[in-house]
Amino acid sequence: MMKSRTAIQVRYAETDAMGIAHHSNYPVWFEVARVAMMDGLGFPYLELEKQGYRLPVIALHLQYFRPCSFADNINVEAFVTERPRVRIRIDYKVFRDDILLASGYSEHAFTNAQGQIVKPHPAFIKALENALIIV
Amino acid sequence: MMKSRTAIQVRYAETDAMGIAHHSNYPVWFEVARVAMMDGLGFPYLELEKQGYRLPVIALHLQYFRPCSFADNINVEAFVTERPRVRIRIDYKVFRDDILLASGYSEHAFTNAQGQIVKPHPAFIKALENALIIV
Amino acid sequence: MMKSRTAIQVRYAETDAMGIAHHSNYPVWFEVARVAMMDGLGFPYLELEKQGYRLPVIALHLQYFRPCSFADNINVEAFVTERPRVRIRIDYKVFRDDILLASGYSEHAFTNAQGQIVKPHPAFIKALENALIIV
Amino acid sequence: MMKSRTAIQVRYAETDAMGIAHHSNYPVWFEVARVAMMDGLGFPYLELEKQGYRLPVIALHLQYFRPCSFADNINVEAFVTERPRVRIRIDYKVFRDDILLASGYSEHAFTNAQGQIVKPHPAFIKALENALIIV
Repeated sequence: MMKSRTAIQVRYAETDAMGIAHHSNYPVWFEVARVAMMDGLGFPYLELEKQGYRLPVIALHLQYFRPCSFADNINVEAFVTERPRVRIRIDYKVFRDDILLASGYSEHAFTNAQGQIVKPHPAFIKALENALIIV
Repeated sequence: MMKSRTAIQVRYAETDAMGIAHHSNYPVWFEVARVAMMDGLGFPYLELEKQGYRLPVIALHLQYFRPCSFADNINVEAFVTERPRVRIRIDYKVFRDDILLASGYSEHAFTNAQGQIVKPHPAFIKALENALIIV
Repeated sequence: MMKSRTAIQVRYAETDAMGIAHHSNYPVWFEVARVAMMDGLGFPYLELEKQGYRLPVIALHLQYFRPCSFADNINVEAFVTERPRVRIRIDYKVFRDDILLASGYSEHAFTNAQGQIVKPHPAFIKALENALIIV
Repeated sequence: MMKSRTAIQVRYAETDAMGIAHHSNYPVWFEVARVAMMDGLGFPYLELEKQGYRLPVIALHLQYFRPCSFADNINVEAFVTERPRVRIRIDYKVFRDDILLASGYSEHAFTNAQGQIVKPHPAFIKALENALIIV
């Protein structure tokens, strides 16, 4: 598992008065893809939560190249391009067919359930390192 | 305090490809108005939560008469028309100026933080009874 | 095609501070299921839109029996139980495995792109009539 | 009008299972603040839309320093720090009292209603230049 690919169909509720998907949905789709990537790595987010970890977003960057619209079938790729440290970074690309619609990344800290910074989960970090690709 | 009235401006993110506010925002606006009503009654929802109570929605009904659009200034009224029992019911009306855009109600159960049904909070029930109006 | 069944995984963004999916997501999930049902009937909503029709929600009713949480795999059924007239009604049931989590219905009017009431799309009404089931 | 400041109360629907406002709400709050800033500049977004312009988001950057929770009263500042060109950039800071919770910026292109790139609205650009501050 080096790159996770999640199929999403744009919901009507996600469109806006411009007739396109509102830009605030992309962070939600990134999250859906991130969760799928973690499933693929054998570290479901839910499992990490049960072990007392949280992975709050501490930074987010998005570039929007082309819009998408209601009922469009898009694919969101999530992948790792940077060696995880105290903070981990996940990268994303959103495609409709072969057209790149958007790209971006999220950065996360490891915290406990009370929101305090904790040491990263060693086995999860190892899994991320193994999934590291240079795109 | 018999009827709470909350001013909301329609956000661009709340519009959809029809150019109007998507119908799924009205339950969110109802909630904003319900929270304001509870503030007005002297029982902020946050305070009830701290006391270990939750008020999950167990039923919701909405009627949509006229749409509203981006930047519209609407008012959401929340009020009580029914004597609260095990379940409590809050009614809502959404206006733009004097035009009724939508109406509806929500029903709630009292639960603890684990989601188990508990006896209603006596003082809050009393406050709701005092706020009871027939519209 | 008598009953449409759509698989949805609860997104983290759909959860709330009670740790469950917020009640305002169910109308969005109903819509996803309604869109899938219309695809199944051979009348994709997008196609109706291109023909100049809109199907705004004019009423919505929901009952919530049990909560669902992040990463839960739910199924949303959409089906017709009432002969469509000027307004059409779609019914919904939300399941996790065999457990009924919520049910409800939406009512819709036929309008043109300007939001004016128009006569129903005859072939779509016929397709809905054929899909009519009594549950 | 050099810096716009918009008060927002965190909605329950905006919280997530971590008990904090989900990170995908911040772009929505940025937009609310951007709309208020444009009102303050005398160029309401709605007015620009009526004149045939759109200002889609083409890039977005966010940094999250501290979380906020249900019912928190936050202030979102929107301001211009960069001379507007073909693309314009708006900066944001989110505060609760004096505590900086998040910061970021959005970049926008000028398009027509069909989404095609057009020359910037000259008077609006002039207003942005006048509002330019270095923070």
